[in-house]
Amino acid sequence: MQSSENTHSVQFLDEQLQDVITLLEKQQLEKSLVRRGPSANHELVEAMLQNQHQVRLQEKFESLHPADSAFILESLPLDQRMAAWDAISIQHDGQVLLEVSDAVRQTLISGMESEELATVAGTLNTDEIADLAADIPKRTMLKILRSLNSMERNNLTAILSYQSSQVGALMDFGMITIRDDLNLRAIIAYIRKLGKLPSHTDKLFVVDQYDKVQGILPLQRLLTHLPSQQVADVMVTDFIRFQIDQDAAEVARAFERYDLISAPVVDDEGRLQGRLCVDNILDFIREKVDEDLLTQAGVGEEEDLFASVWKSARNRWGWLLINIVTAFASTRIIGVFEDIILQIVALASLMPIIAAMGGNTGNQTSMLIIRSLALGQINSTNISHLIKKELTLALINGTFIGLIMGLLSLLLYQDMALSIVMATAMFINLWVAVLVGLGIPLLRHKFGKDPAVGTSVILTAITDSMGFFIFLGLASLFLIR
Amino acid sequence: MQSSENTHSVQFLDEQLQDVITLLEKQQLEKSLVRRGPSANHELVEAMLQNQHQVRLQEKFESLHPADSAFILESLPLDQRMAAWDAISIQHDGQVLLEVSDAVRQTLISGMESEELATVAGTLNTDEIADLAADIPKRTMLKILRSLNSMERNNLTAILSYQSSQVGALMDFGMITIRDDLNLRAIIAYIRKLGKLPSHTDKLFVVDQYDKVQGILPLQRLLTHLPSQQVADVMVTDFIRFQIDQDAAEVARAFERYDLISAPVVDDEGRLQGRLCVDNILDFIREKVDEDLLTQAGVGEEEDLFASVWKSARNRWGWLLINIVTAFASTRIIGVFEDIILQIVALASLMPIIAAMGGNTGNQTSMLIIRSLALGQINSTNISHLIKKELTLALINGTFIGLIMGLLSLLLYQDMALSIVMATAMFINLWVAVLVGLGIPLLRHKFGKDPAVGTSVILTAITDSMGFFIFLGLASLFLIR
Repeated sequence: MQSSENTHSVQFLDEQLQDVITLLEKQQLEKSLVRRGPSANHELVEAMLQNQHQVRLQEKFESLHPADSAFILESLPLDQRMAAWDAISIQHDGQVLLEVSDAVRQTLISGMESEELATVAGTLNTDEIADLAADIPKRTMLKILRSLNSMERNNLTAILSYQSSQVGALMDFGMITIRDDLNLRAIIAYIRKLGKLPSHTDKLFVVDQYDKVQGILPLQRLLTHLPSQQVADVMVTDFIRFQIDQDAAEVARAFERYDLISAPVVDDEGRLQGRLCVDNILDFIREKVDEDLLTQAGVGEEEDLFASVWKSARNRWGWLLINIVTAFASTRIIGVFEDIILQIVALASLMPIIAAMGGNTGNQTSMLIIRSLALGQINSTNISHLIKKELTLALINGTFIGLIMGLLSLLLYQDMALSIVMATAMFINLWVAVLVGLGIPLLRHKFGKDPAVGTSVILTAITDSMGFFIFLGLASLFLIR
Repeated sequence: MQSSENTHSVQFLDEQLQDVITLLEKQQLEKSLVRRGPSANHELVEAMLQNQHQVRLQEKFESLHPADSAFILESLPLDQRMAAWDAISIQHDGQVLLEVSDAVRQTLISGMESEELATVAGTLNTDEIADLAADIPKRTMLKILRSLNSMERNNLTAILSYQSSQVGALMDFGMITIRDDLNLRAIIAYIRKLGKLPSHTDKLFVVDQYDKVQGILPLQRLLTHLPSQQVADVMVTDFIRFQIDQDAAEVARAFERYDLISAPVVDDEGRLQGRLCVDNILDFIREKVDEDLLTQAGVGEEEDLFASVWKSARNRWGWLLINIVTAFASTRIIGVFEDIILQIVALASLMPIIAAMGGNTGNQTSMLIIRSLALGQINSTNISHLIKKELTLALINGTFIGLIMGLLSLLLYQDMALSIVMATAMFINLWVAVLVGLGIPLLRHKFGKDPAVGTSVILTAITDSMGFFIFLGLASLFLIR
């Protein structure tokens, strides 16, 4: 159905995937049938049948957008994935490699010859090669570098010299530069001679003889102004540019804020170094977000759905081991108070509540702080206000939740002294939780670290240990008979 | 410094904020000085001084992008925020309202007269009014509706009839439509007559007499093709369009996948209904992501940094109350086993580890499933593979972590039977955790619910209760002397 194809819905992708799977399975089936058959010329028949499905597979992938081919490869188990990968023409291999996830890219590249990979790289721009560089074996990378001209080589090493969190790593070189002493007619003639503009070209960059950016000329203005006008008169001089070593997250926010499609990247002296486009910004945002979510859940990195069990296990063990250590450490505190628990066994079933509620409130606070830090909303003028507010909130939450807990334990155990200890411990632990929830991200930020990483693990370790310690400590002080 | 201004860094925003705060404080200081002074004509002086700073504030905001003004308003405490809001001209109020967060928008709108708000709405497009609609009082909304012409009213009600998760709610009406029987010269003349194109116009939409979209004409092609060519010969007919009732998250993925800047939105019959642009998609992604992160941390919605403590408390109590209930419920299981704990008190300090590790592994599994579901990567063909893999992983994790736990408790308590119970309970609970971590998101997805919401809370409740139950249950079966 044409309409389904053009709306590019989930159904569309699913249909394409099913088609590919059917073709792959037919190919597989006939391979095995032919092998089993006693035919003398079975090799010929096999070759013919294989060929027929291979051609249909190739046509299928030829008709798909590289991103859709990438989606299909990601959704296929390893053996089918390799068969499908063979059916994608070498001209499209590069674009597909750019679109698949890191984990899947490694499976695809690991099956490729060095020679083949170098050919694929030859179909890509330097900024695209840079995106793949981390997954390309060193020897192949040297081969690729040798095949580039000196400008391309410079561009590639420029990008690779920046960290993934910097603008330099996200830029491309698809900018069109013009001089301001030309008229629009000349620019239009120039563009017509180029024949095709790089994608996301919504503006041309006006530079002087030293490559310093003087202004930008939106394509729109080329169309809405008279051809006889000078670039200098039509260009926009109050425009947004980014420093090559600027923080990418900050720049992503600027793209959102100012609704940018593309923007020039400059060095310290204002000389044009490259171009940033919204598609790379979108990819950056998505990767950062995925990373944050996975880190929060204690997963190392993006996983290939069809990665081997061992590979997945390795990916998840890092955090689990840390959790084992913190869980053991915090429960050692319980061990210290075993005598008290033997005297008042109700403590055993109440103490996990103190710990859990501390973790919950602490996480609420730390997440709001982490987000405000990411938005740049926390500064020297409002930080004290913010801390005061969270501490007041801890007071209110502690009082209410403490009262609820006290009442509930009174109902359960009809022991007033125990209930008061419960309420007090809850109150203090919520206070501790909010202090820690404020402190960890703010301190990490102050020392230039990502406030999101590890905060939840450290926080839970502290609220657990403190919860057990405060509750059992208060109990041993006031409840010993 | 000009370079800092143009790179629009965090420093730039911080400087602007400091400038505004200084002006606001001067205004405040002089107000109080004048009030204290015994001068006879103090009202005149006050008016003069106030005026001077008011003018400088107004100039400041006049020079800032609406998004930057919004950032500054969000970073100011309530009283200063209102004073700054007064200094923003009514022509810019609308754009600023669009840029601030929902929580801050409410504080700004609550201080505005119905008449004033209607005037502000008059400066906005219908799709922009729709974005504000949820925060505008009903009476004012009726006034605004009456001031619109019938086409605008239709557009507005169209957008408002879609849920925020549908394409219809994100679209705008800034599309330029053309017919395919014109030549490019005519189109260029038409654009020149328009004088200005809506932002994010990277392509024109080619429609027939029934408003059905026939193709798209990228602005690029207007520049690279000869003016004498017909639109029909130059337009792209294999283009991406979206259904007005399509899921916005799916469409956001398509924007990322195909690197789109704008795309037509059509109804069931393929008639043009509106336009989707990447800036709205970026905003949508950011909102969805923030929502996911906050939900994970148990916060109801985005909070105004300077919201009253009571408002913040209400925002956080929902999840805390649910957590109180689940924490109490799961620890009731411990209550049942108090006799066992009295006999073997070591159980009290070991049981939280079983519960915690179950929660951790379950969260890893559920997060990976939730992400794969969001990416559309899970389908009928690979789901069984996926489930098998996670269960195998649970087997491996259970064995290893079980062994580690068993060994550690053997070291601590020198009790072989206890250690075997510990290892077995850990093994079983990790298995349960992975089953639940798989089951909840998959079931929620199957029944058309967002798999991310609440999964973590339910999962932790189950892994806690089951952890306590399995461990203490095994202990009472095998360790009673």
